[in-house]
Parts: sequence; structure tokens; C-alpha cells
Amino acid sequence: MNENAPRMPTCEGTQAALASLQQIGLPPTPLLPVEIGGVRAWAKAECLQPIGAFKIRGAWWRLVNLTPEERARGVVAVSSGNHAQGVAWAARRLDIPAAIVMPRNAPAVKLEATRALGAEIVLYDRPGEDRDEVAAREVERRGAVLVHAFADPWVIEGQGSAGHEAAAQLGRTPSRLIVCCGGGGLAAGLSLACPDSAIHVVEPAGWDMVGQSLAAGEIVRVGANPPATICDALQPDATKPINLEVLNGRAEPGVAVTDDEVRAAQRFAFARLKLVLEPGGAAALAAALAGKVPLDEDTVIMLTGGNTDAASFARTLAEV
Amino acid sequence: MNENAPRMPTCEGTQAALASLQQIGLPPTPLLPVEIGGVRAWAKAECLQPIGAFKIRGAWWRLVNLTPEERARGVVAVSSGNHAQGVAWAARRLDIPAAIVMPRNAPAVKLEATRALGAEIVLYDRPGEDRDEVAAREVERRGAVLVHAFADPWVIEGQGSAGHEAAAQLGRTPSRLIVCCGGGGLAAGLSLACPDSAIHVVEPAGWDMVGQSLAAGEIVRVGANPPATICDALQPDATKPINLEVLNGRAEPGVAVTDDEVRAAQRFAFARLKLVLEPGGAAALAAALAGKVPLDEDTVIMLTGGNTDAASFARTLAEV
Repeated sequence: MNENAPRMPTCEGTQAALASLQQIGLPPTPLLPVEIGGVRAWAKAECLQPIGAFKIRGAWWRLVNLTPEERARGVVAVSSGNHAQGVAWAARRLDIPAAIVMPRNAPAVKLEATRALGAEIVLYDRPGEDRDEVAAREVERRGAVLVHAFADPWVIEGQGSAGHEAAAQLGRTPSRLIVCCGGGGLAAGLSLACPDSAIHVVEPAGWDMVGQSLAAGEIVRVGANPPATICDALQPDATKPINLEVLNGRAEPGVAVTDDEVRAAQRFAFARLKLVLEPGGAAALAAALAGKVPLDEDTVIMLTGGNTDAASFARTLAEV
Repeated sequence: MNENAPRMPTCEGTQAALASLQQIGLPPTPLLPVEIGGVRAWAKAECLQPIGAFKIRGAWWRLVNLTPEERARGVVAVSSGNHAQGVAWAARRLDIPAAIVMPRNAPAVKLEATRALGAEIVLYDRPGEDRDEVAAREVERRGAVLVHAFADPWVIEGQGSAGHEAAAQLGRTPSRLIVCCGGGGLAAGLSLACPDSAIHVVEPAGWDMVGQSLAAGEIVRVGANPPATICDALQPDATKPINLEVLNGRAEPGVAVTDDEVRAAQRFAFARLKLVLEPGGAAALAAALAGKVPLDEDTVIMLTGGNTDAASFARTLAEV
């Protein structure tokens, strides 16, 4: 047995994470009815979290489990935005120093929000620099703990807390969970929290690295010249072993959505749900609207984030 | 005693209305924390109701209290949109015929949504025709019951159900409720539901007929050439005796907000709350952001509706 292997996340851990979030008074996000093609399914509005995204769950659960010594040395996170805000939010609440490594071209709204939460920002150039190297340098320099955005057992468990919340709101286990997917932290957490639910991961076309990895049975990295996507929150180069190990054999075949499908979902959420979704936060809804996943009345569609800037949202609304 | 005088709405009625809404499974709208000027207050997101506005409450409570004979003859309502959708929603659910008198220049999104809910639409020209005469003609012709948008004891009680919901979510009586106000149905209902809360009515500048009537102690009608306002949902010519009677001596002095303040509130709700608010649904938040009402940590700001079309919302977002 490899003593350095990370512990594996558990269903019990996802329950404990929810209890911890409830203890600090984080209200459940609403589960809203949504009618699609004559089927009344459910949408879990994680965009209504205080930081505008579900990432607050995993960040809180990781940070609250640090030892006193680790808390004193602080944390480093790598994120294009939502995980950054989650870590900054939890760090401020726990009085832990936090440095966030963010791409210089991250949406301005996400950079500003992270700064406003009191975190120190370390910028890097998205194509030129290796963000993991930048993060490793910061970790070394500070003696800090790296809080990975998805490849971390506590982060996975924290994200999974949303599954217990949804099941309690629905009054039964969801038949299926449709999940916006970047590295696979939320999908892995939900698959542990809801072991009897089908898990559908939805990724941007060309960036469907979890779906491709599930199909191959091993980690597949994004190619050298990946296509552009408007889903800035769903662009990791690859999933990680801990995520694939949890999802392998558990998740349904992956689904990929186009930018047009994502924008249509953002407009649907605006008109029908009165919710603001960022592109990455609308991917699961996009798959549902495009008929790419099965739906029934016990289906829960995760609406994972709403951190988008006014100009691009206005452009999306103006299209028809 | 005037035998023809309508019964007065009661606090008990607001509680019974909530129980009825809970019985049909209408979930409570979320109470979301909102930080304004360093104060953490609360926002009640009524824009997340199935019809995108709080009006579902009063319409349901009125229609469910009709006698079997009244149900058979059907209902008529006059509304520029949200009350129309509320009545259509409740009528469809109770299998009651509904005719809605709507201005021809109502927002297209509201006309379409009302039709989609199965109601018959009777159009009139906003400046040329008297909508109350059009409605009276339809009531006579059909033998139907008129469901007034605000001057009705059941409608007032139904809207007031939101106050009990907010108090339960807050865990205590709100110190104050900041309320978007058209004719005063919601404000009257909340003042009954939460007798220990200060009630602040917020209206569009130049259309602050409840505020002016409270100040005068009698009903003041809008002038001959009222200013334009983007708050299409808050434009009745005057409040009615039943509303003024409930609010008189209970409500704080009225507050008026400008179109610019309303648009700033819509942008704030977009960026910070990830919610879509129509202009009229953002009036209370506008007053809070403009410093026109006091705020504390037990303050509840009503976000009353989100039925706005994409083009005008995109224009509002594009401004700075």
C-alpha cells in the first residue's frame, strides 16, 4: 500500500461536509422545478451560493479540516475563478492566509470578486506558464497547503454535499444527476453522495476530458490545439487519478455541448428561471435542453455557477 | 354597517393562505443574504416563483376560496402581466375558466406567458380605453368573478403569506420589510402578516400613489400627465380603499425611486445575487441601494418579479 496515496473520499465524508456547512448557517440552494420538453425535472441553483458557485462547498470542507499548524501556514489554490472565490471565502471565515494563482485573462468579475474576499492573487499567463509550477513555487515558498480545485478528497466530499441537499429537497434519491464537469470534483462527490443515481457528466465540446477518460479507462489529456470554448470554468487539461477512480464504472458515458447550446441554456435560465448562469454553469442545462441526456421527474440538473460579466451576458441575451 | 363592504383581510387569513400554498407543494422562495453598505440584510427572491413573481400567492388564495358556482362561471382579471400570470396559473390548476384583460402594449414576454398558461386574453389600448370598463363588460357577459390585482381581501392575504415565510426563514420577525408597491396589495398583506415589522413601500417616482395617499390620509390619483417609468408592473392610477385602510397608520412614509436607481438595482441583482429582476421587481432593492430606507440585519427586501424581456435587460446591463 502506498503511504503517500491520498485517502479516498467517501459517502460518509459527503454527509459530514453537509453537516459542517449547515453548522455555519449556509442555507441550501433552492431546487426549482423546470419543464423541458413536457417533462418536469428539477434544477439545483448553486449559482445562488454566496460566491455565485458550488465551489464554496469543497473549499470550506478542505479548509475546515486543516490542522492548526496547516492553518497558520496558509493555503494556495489554482483557479480561473470560482474555486478561487470558494477558497478565499472559506479562508477569510477561518482567518487563514490564502494565495490564489489565477490566469491573467480570467474574467474580470472573477478576479475582482476574489480580491474583494481578501485573498492574495498571483497572476500567470494562461498559455505561456504552467500554472501548476507557479502554484508549486508558492506552496514551497510559503510552506502552504495546496488546495486543488478537484483532485482532493475533501474538496470532492464537499462538492458532494449538494447531492444530499438535493435528495432531501426532492424527498427521494434523484434518478439521475446532470452535472457540469471540469475536472470532475463535483461529479465524483455527487456519485458518492447519491450511489443509486445515474451520473451524467457534461463538458464543453473538445474539452470533454472526463468523458474521454471514462471511455478510455485512463486519463486522456486535452490535445495540443484545443478548440475555443466559452466555458472558462470547465477547461482543465485533464482529470486526475482520484476523480477518475471514483467515477470509473459509476458515471454514464460523457456528454459534450457546443457554445451555441450553452448560450441557449443561458437564455432559457434567464427567461424561465430568472437565474443568471455563466457559460460553464449552464452546461448541464444545455445538455438537457439539447436532448443529449434522458430526463424524468426525479432528474436533478446542476446549475453550478453564475459568475459572468454584464457585457458578455448582454451579448448572449441579444442573440437569437 | 355597509353590508356590501368587502370583508377586511386578517393576519389569520395570511397564515391560512400560506398553509394552502404549502399544501399544493409551492416551495418557499429563498431568503438570500445581501450586503449593502456594510450591512448584511436579506432578499426574498419572489422572482423565483413558477410564474416569476409573487402574484401567484394572492391569485391562488382568491381562486381556491371561490364557491363551486363561482368556479364554474370563471374569473376575469385586469393586469399588465404578473397578476395575469398568477390568475392564469391558479385557474389552470383549479380548472377554472379565466379571461385576462391586458394592455396591448404590455411586455411581450408577459402576454406570451399568460397565453401559455391557458388563459383567454382580452386586449385593450392602454391610454385610450378604461381597463376597468373593459373588465366590467367581461364580468357581466360571463357572469364571472372579478379578481382584482390588489383591492381584494383574499389577494391581500395571499400576498401576505410571503411575510410568514420570510419570518420563518429568518428565524424571527423582520425588523422591516422593504416592498415594491403598485396598488398596495403586497404591502397590505405583509403589514398584516408581520404586525411588528416596519413596512416601507417603494414606488416609481411620479407614480408613488400609495405614498402620496398615506401622506394625505386619503386616496390620491395619479395626475393627468404622469412621467414615464420603466416599472410597468407598478403603474396603477391609484390605490383603493381596502389597501389604504390596512396601510394607514401602519406603513412608514412612502419612498420613490427613479428609473436610474431601478436599473442600478437590476445590475446589482445580476452581478451579486445572480438573479434576473424586472424593473418593478427591483424597486425595493433600488431604495435600499440608494440609501432611501434604513437597513439592518433583520431587514427583508422583497424582490418581487423577474419577468422582463431579453432586449431591455441586455440594454440595462450594457449601461454603466
